[in-house]
Amino acid sequence: MSFLKLTVAYDGTGYAGWQIQPASPTIQGALAQAWLRITGEEPNFSASGRTDAGVHAEAQIVGVETQSTLSPWRLRKGLNAVLPEDIVVRLVEPAPTGFHATYDALRKTYRYQLHDGPAPPLFDRRYVWWWRAGRLDDLQMGQGGERFVGRHDFVSLQSLGSDRSTTVRTISNLSVTRTGDRLDITVTGDGFLYNMVRTIAGTLVEVGRGSKPPEWIAEVLAARDRSAAGPTAPAEGLVLASVEYQTA
Amino acid sequence: MSFLKLTVAYDGTGYAGWQIQPASPTIQGALAQAWLRITGEEPNFSASGRTDAGVHAEAQIVGVETQSTLSPWRLRKGLNAVLPEDIVVRLVEPAPTGFHATYDALRKTYRYQLHDGPAPPLFDRRYVWWWRAGRLDDLQMGQGGERFVGRHDFVSLQSLGSDRSTTVRTISNLSVTRTGDRLDITVTGDGFLYNMVRTIAGTLVEVGRGSKPPEWIAEVLAARDRSAAGPTAPAEGLVLASVEYQTA
Repeated sequence: MSFLKLTVAYDGTGYAGWQIQPASPTIQGALAQAWLRITGEEPNFSASGRTDAGVHAEAQIVGVETQSTLSPWRLRKGLNAVLPEDIVVRLVEPAPTGFHATYDALRKTYRYQLHDGPAPPLFDRRYVWWWRAGRLDDLQMGQGGERFVGRHDFVSLQSLGSDRSTTVRTISNLSVTRTGDRLDITVTGDGFLYNMVRTIAGTLVEVGRGSKPPEWIAEVLAARDRSAAGPTAPAEGLVLASVEYQTA
Repeated sequence: MSFLKLTVAYDGTGYAGWQIQPASPTIQGALAQAWLRITGEEPNFSASGRTDAGVHAEAQIVGVETQSTLSPWRLRKGLNAVLPEDIVVRLVEPAPTGFHATYDALRKTYRYQLHDGPAPPLFDRRYVWWWRAGRLDDLQMGQGGERFVGRHDFVSLQSLGSDRSTTVRTISNLSVTRTGDRLDITVTGDGFLYNMVRTIAGTLVEVGRGSKPPEWIAEVLAARDRSAAGPTAPAEGLVLASVEYQTA
């Protein structure tokens, strides 16, 4: 048996999220089917996180234990040959014994992508939230975003119905950058509550549109109440950008 | 009557090119239909150039003479509301009397986009030529590309069956840049022969894969023979990036 680490990119538009489901197309389901075709094995995948329906990934990390003797290079080539064009295995690498993509993850980086021009987005239209109500103030959003950085109770930013035992997380970095009509909110943290990045995005949009000042973010966190924050931004703008592990 | 200048972006994947045709979907056809719906007029569009089937545009320039009294802002909003999502009117601006997008163009910039990684392209998969045969040497390609810059007879780089009266053109800039697995060839010139940018790309790939040295480009030009150049690169990697006019 050997352990492998897969780096998987996907356009989540056509999928009901990462996690396998009986009646809906999922990334895990498509990847498991491809794996079975190439190796003959039913895989037991671990993933760095379960992305929701419509959410994209540049580098979802997937762990798998296998008896296959195919080289990483052959495996990648074979998987990509049978996967649909909206899922790509970017890398296959040997992983340490016992590697588990969920538990071993140290930090994850998500990017929330907005388009705030008056004309619709084009080439990135499947990967952005088109904000139609005028230019967002990205400087104000950046100032608001800084207040999320640090170790906080993020219970105000999680969707109801979540069952995580603790709602304290550490955000090590948050930046807001603009290129033309495109605005990216990039967030790195040691873990994220359910819908947390999308709620951070929706909350920063409240600041960007001028309905709240940057200082309001401190109130949102202090309230420890979901209704204190802004709305949950739509899934289509969210991309899992990278995951850090202690070991390669 | 007033003259307007439209800046139009499109994903050309689903179209038989710019120019209207009776039985195939075209960009001009879709735009004319939208224009009729919004203004009630049959438009007489001029365009900076006829992009071929499958070719994309970030900023195709379209001229039109109109009696419509709708403001540029209203026109853009109305057109985008009825256009399919793969065509976007980025700007509508007043143009000088007599403005003609074809004849008044001074310089055009095209970008040819390649992906040369071992794993397939994902987010830009509709907009690149995936070169599967290994890493291309972008430094060699840049050195070869410099030899295209200047005033030359580009007859070796035009597809057969073309009927332009002169095949002399001036390329003012050509650069090759890499970001990861993505390689962009950006070419600015005062005019381009039929398939010229795609043939330049296909010819530079011969250099990038190591089958020809950069100096070979001078021979290609000197031969004045299409068979001296490399193959025509596929349409999907080509993007009309911008067009310059003397007047705004």
